Amino acid sequence: MIIVLKPEATKEHADAILERIEAKGLKPLYMPGTERVVLGALGDERLLGELRLDSHPMVESVQAVLAPYKLVSREMRGHDTIVDLDGVAVGGTNFTVIAGPCAVESREQMLGTAEAVKAAGAVGLRGGAYKPRTSPYAFQGLGEEGLRILREVADATGMPCVTEVVEVADVEAVEEYASAFQVGARNMQNFRLLRALGQSRKPVILKRGMAAKVDDLLMAAEYILSEGNPNVILCERGIQTFETATRNTLDLNAIPVIKARTHLPVLVDPSHGTGIREFVAPMARAAAACGADGLLVEVHVRPEEALSDGKQSLYPAQFEELMRGLEPFVVAAGKTLR
Amino acid sequence: MIIVLKPEATKEHADAILERIEAKGLKPLYMPGTERVVLGALGDERLLGELRLDSHPMVESVQAVLAPYKLVSREMRGHDTIVDLDGVAVGGTNFTVIAGPCAVESREQMLGTAEAVKAAGAVGLRGGAYKPRTSPYAFQGLGEEGLRILREVADATGMPCVTEVVEVADVEAVEEYASAFQVGARNMQNFRLLRALGQSRKPVILKRGMAAKVDDLLMAAEYILSEGNPNVILCERGIQTFETATRNTLDLNAIPVIKARTHLPVLVDPSHGTGIREFVAPMARAAAACGADGLLVEVHVRPEEALSDGKQSLYPAQFEELMRGLEPFVVAAGKTLR
Amino acid sequence: MIIVLKPEATKEHADAILERIEAKGLKPLYMPGTERVVLGALGDERLLGELRLDSHPMVESVQAVLAPYKLVSREMRGHDTIVDLDGVAVGGTNFTVIAGPCAVESREQMLGTAEAVKAAGAVGLRGGAYKPRTSPYAFQGLGEEGLRILREVADATGMPCVTEVVEVADVEAVEEYASAFQVGARNMQNFRLLRALGQSRKPVILKRGMAAKVDDLLMAAEYILSEGNPNVILCERGIQTFETATRNTLDLNAIPVIKARTHLPVLVDPSHGTGIREFVAPMARAAAACGADGLLVEVHVRPEEALSDGKQSLYPAQFEELMRGLEPFVVAAGKTLR
Amino acid sequence: MIIVLKPEATKEHADAILERIEAKGLKPLYMPGTERVVLGALGDERLLGELRLDSHPMVESVQAVLAPYKLVSREMRGHDTIVDLDGVAVGGTNFTVIAGPCAVESREQMLGTAEAVKAAGAVGLRGGAYKPRTSPYAFQGLGEEGLRILREVADATGMPCVTEVVEVADVEAVEEYASAFQVGARNMQNFRLLRALGQSRKPVILKRGMAAKVDDLLMAAEYILSEGNPNVILCERGIQTFETATRNTLDLNAIPVIKARTHLPVLVDPSHGTGIREFVAPMARAAAACGADGLLVEVHVRPEEALSDGKQSLYPAQFEELMRGLEPFVVAAGKTLR
Repeated sequence: MIIVLKPEATKEHADAILERIEAKGLKPLYMPGTERVVLGALGDERLLGELRLDSHPMVESVQAVLAPYKLVSREMRGHDTIVDLDGVAVGGTNFTVIAGPCAVESREQMLGTAEAVKAAGAVGLRGGAYKPRTSPYAFQGLGEEGLRILREVADATGMPCVTEVVEVADVEAVEEYASAFQVGARNMQNFRLLRALGQSRKPVILKRGMAAKVDDLLMAAEYILSEGNPNVILCERGIQTFETATRNTLDLNAIPVIKARTHLPVLVDPSHGTGIREFVAPMARAAAACGADGLLVEVHVRPEEALSDGKQSLYPAQFEELMRGLEPFVVAAGKTLR
Repeated sequence: MIIVLKPEATKEHADAILERIEAKGLKPLYMPGTERVVLGALGDERLLGELRLDSHPMVESVQAVLAPYKLVSREMRGHDTIVDLDGVAVGGTNFTVIAGPCAVESREQMLGTAEAVKAAGAVGLRGGAYKPRTSPYAFQGLGEEGLRILREVADATGMPCVTEVVEVADVEAVEEYASAFQVGARNMQNFRLLRALGQSRKPVILKRGMAAKVDDLLMAAEYILSEGNPNVILCERGIQTFETATRNTLDLNAIPVIKARTHLPVLVDPSHGTGIREFVAPMARAAAACGADGLLVEVHVRPEEALSDGKQSLYPAQFEELMRGLEPFVVAAGKTLR
Repeated sequence: MIIVLKPEATKEHADAILERIEAKGLKPLYMPGTERVVLGALGDERLLGELRLDSHPMVESVQAVLAPYKLVSREMRGHDTIVDLDGVAVGGTNFTVIAGPCAVESREQMLGTAEAVKAAGAVGLRGGAYKPRTSPYAFQGLGEEGLRILREVADATGMPCVTEVVEVADVEAVEEYASAFQVGARNMQNFRLLRALGQSRKPVILKRGMAAKVDDLLMAAEYILSEGNPNVILCERGIQTFETATRNTLDLNAIPVIKARTHLPVLVDPSHGTGIREFVAPMARAAAACGADGLLVEVHVRPEEALSDGKQSLYPAQFEELMRGLEPFVVAAGKTLR
Repeated sequence: MIIVLKPEATKEHADAILERIEAKGLKPLYMPGTERVVLGALGDERLLGELRLDSHPMVESVQAVLAPYKLVSREMRGHDTIVDLDGVAVGGTNFTVIAGPCAVESREQMLGTAEAVKAAGAVGLRGGAYKPRTSPYAFQGLGEEGLRILREVADATGMPCVTEVVEVADVEAVEEYASAFQVGARNMQNFRLLRALGQSRKPVILKRGMAAKVDDLLMAAEYILSEGNPNVILCERGIQTFETATRNTLDLNAIPVIKARTHLPVLVDPSHGTGIREFVAPMARAAAACGADGLLVEVHVRPEEALSDGKQSLYPAQFEELMRGLEPFVVAAGKTLR
């Protein structure tokens, strides 16, 4: 940790801070420059955080040397983590496509969609039972009834299923029915929920928040790992920018950045990442090309009747075409579609 | 609602959509242009939402004519809502300053800070018992013990107190101790929490999310009102932008926008809005000048020892100076500091 | 064009506006709703722009039905434009890789880099003679001497060369030496420069501004085409967002959006798009996968001695590896690397 | 400057870099930590920039200790710069209001507007002769004829006048007619133009770019000062964010930040900062409250007929009301309206 003092800081201020650093068992450094005094503190950055030196009135700025996360970091674990999703291995050289409707609407809609996506090559099923919606007047999901349908259809088609959990109180029910928890962008920093999921051993698909930097996403994952659950799959789904041509701005730069910083697998959600069905397939290919470990894609048997996110949902025929076109990109990226 | 069809849409497509509009009991309009066919649908925009025309493969874009919220809108209620905070009236011509530490750390710290902010002119006390923190290794708040201390100190100093609630399971406890709920930026779209708070009649201070547009904030407030709780106070606390000189970018434009769109009162939090204690006072003055109904300010008896957000916490003497300088701005804005 | 009136607008206000629409030779429409009056005006959106109805005190909002650009639009021209870059065809089914250093520093540096990139498969050479630099104390380019070196090396290696033009006064000199003009992100809305380049017939590579929406980029291209130069190549190079892990956020969503809206070819610059050399290759692959027509890549014989942008410049061996890995992605995308 | 090495860097790498630091005449520092080696280099940051250590393959990150600008910095000059605008002093305890139409359209329009704004209390006149417009089909300004009208009206009403310069070739003409140059947001990083203005001694009003950090603005000002022109006035006019309720997001945080970092005066443009005439007055008051040195306001005798930016232009009566309401805020901020 590098501490830059304000120009008006005296030698006494510097000494007092150096003492605090030393008292924590860290190695202090004193670097007087011509225009600023710079202090250093070497050791565990988390102990350094406890010093809270950025609150000190004589400190101009504090710059970390190491990342604030530990368990999720690539340095902690050199090889890729592979997460088992009820028999489907996510990460490593696998490229995993999970598809399904935004929301579970009925048994008929789920089964039709599940059969279609499976036939086209998807290996996992998605569908929301609890839907966080911007408007209180919009469809909010079927709740536990939706979970039951999801599980039934997953069993009928032989695929693991993932579904969003929006609150601690629902963790138990979702755990009972789903193969994995999904944490939505709006809940990426719902730390209580993250802790609760850390108590489980079921995989967690953690979506990046709309205003979250990659490091914020990694810190959120650290919450889950720090509670004991190592089965975290990250997901890039677009960030909030000034561009209005697409619903969100899919930040594919994040994929190689994530790969460099953590051992956890990462999926891409091109449906939310673009918000427009015509753009889902090209961005799915781009995701494969830059190193993602798989996709989360919204498909609906009849998108024009979907109760949510119909505009970005693929028709089954479009999804089939996406899958057909995807394979050479996956192979070129050194992975296997399965 | 205005529906622009794709260039390839035929007269039959248009007719089919017009029939759906009519079937909902809405007034359909057909406007054939030289390059695009435009359809209109007049009536309740919420009914229109149920048509989900943006999912239709022949629809290029859908533009709303009316705002998606109703209960919070200025058109619904011409005069300003005044929220009663245990005897302190927020809104109208009142300018309300609520101050205190980021987190409740100890009885001694709370009492010292509360006495200082009261002496300087604050009329409400803030302090967090449940702290959402980016790092799992950071101080997470004292929990219910913190609520008890907050209530005790609020009683001792004769001020209403507000504290953050981060989860449905805590609503009951927070309701027991606090004068008002605070919903943090990260929970602005925790819709389950918003619904739970809508069941209460205690005031809710709803902070704008880091990536939330003003209309997203108003939709979040609509959740609370739609459940029956009219006592909502909005709060602008800065949005996420590319600027790194300050922690967030305080969007004061939002104040006159909010005033034009809703009857609800709105506070400004210059502490989170800047993240740096030196900039809190000028932005507090700017908030008063552009029409805010009050402030939420972080003050700590010893900021350099604060367990969270010390860098943006004012020393008691700084807060006293802020309050002294603030009054002429409040008066010039046609409000009264009380 | 759809015009929504304010709630307080009377029938007289509406009539007066309808008359202005009719007087322009456009078709007016009157749609009275229960809460708002909506007016329509059908016809050439550019004529509508001249009405400047958004300035009217009784107008709440104005929404365009058609895009504001015309010559660049996909509707104007269904098939892809192919731009001839001194014998290298850009667009259509070609995938064009242009590479070279950020700045021309010396004949030796240019020649070494040019030979290396050509050997690896690049078909065009880049290198800046006029460098827009954030700091007045940084290297500003060799100017006309740089142009001479660039041309000489381009001839020696048999590649077309592109270089940035930052000002109208330099257009003539750049036109003399270079195969194509490059307009940098900071000059995307230097409209005087765009007009001057519209007078030329040499190709223009137009880079997207850091805060420019896709439609802003297309409007900038419209400036050049409207002056008579149809040879415009667009370039996505990253936008300004809150993410700090990379220098810019490469917006690959923009590629399919651009392909849907215009017939012009589009390149991707993964060097500026990431700012970090390790991330250039994966993003180059992603660009090919989502439909880009080629790449602009920074390569330097000795990046650690580069006078600008060394951090994002590839070593020759890294570029060779990039090219080797790229081909299957280009082929899978239905294009040919040449 | 703090240099963090990659984990794989050896002692030899560190030594080689330390030698380069020393060879520049700077003081090197070696700080080996448990997980990273950190190097320091103390001295003139601009010399350090020449080392370009961020391009080194073994360097993980480079963090500056000092700001990259020098002449504009508050440390260079403790007291406020006051710029003389043809007899009107900008900066210090003065609060300067400059008003007028977006564009010079006719002698009659300019004179009517100038008389109105002068009567209401403005002390300077604005009006554009060269208009950078997003669309090539929009009004582009009257050019030199506009400059002549501006000067004539400025003389007739006894006010200094400011007008935008968009290109080096126009600097001479603008210098002849105007009291000060205005550099628009789109040209903030038109470094050639900045250099040319640095050769003049006329004041330059430098507007912040839409994607520019405060430090980018200060670096742009450094360009002008480094060429010898100390008469720079900064201007905050809103930045590009995701919020669409206003045209731009006025970043008033920037005012106290700018005041802390530089001795140059700073104006606020609430017209572009909001884009909507109803919101101009409250944001003008907020600008005064947080320490701005004045305003740049768009006023038009007949906004609904304005050839550009009519939506954000005030009616003369609205401007008069703005000025009446502004004074107590200016006085409370310790300044004088003159």
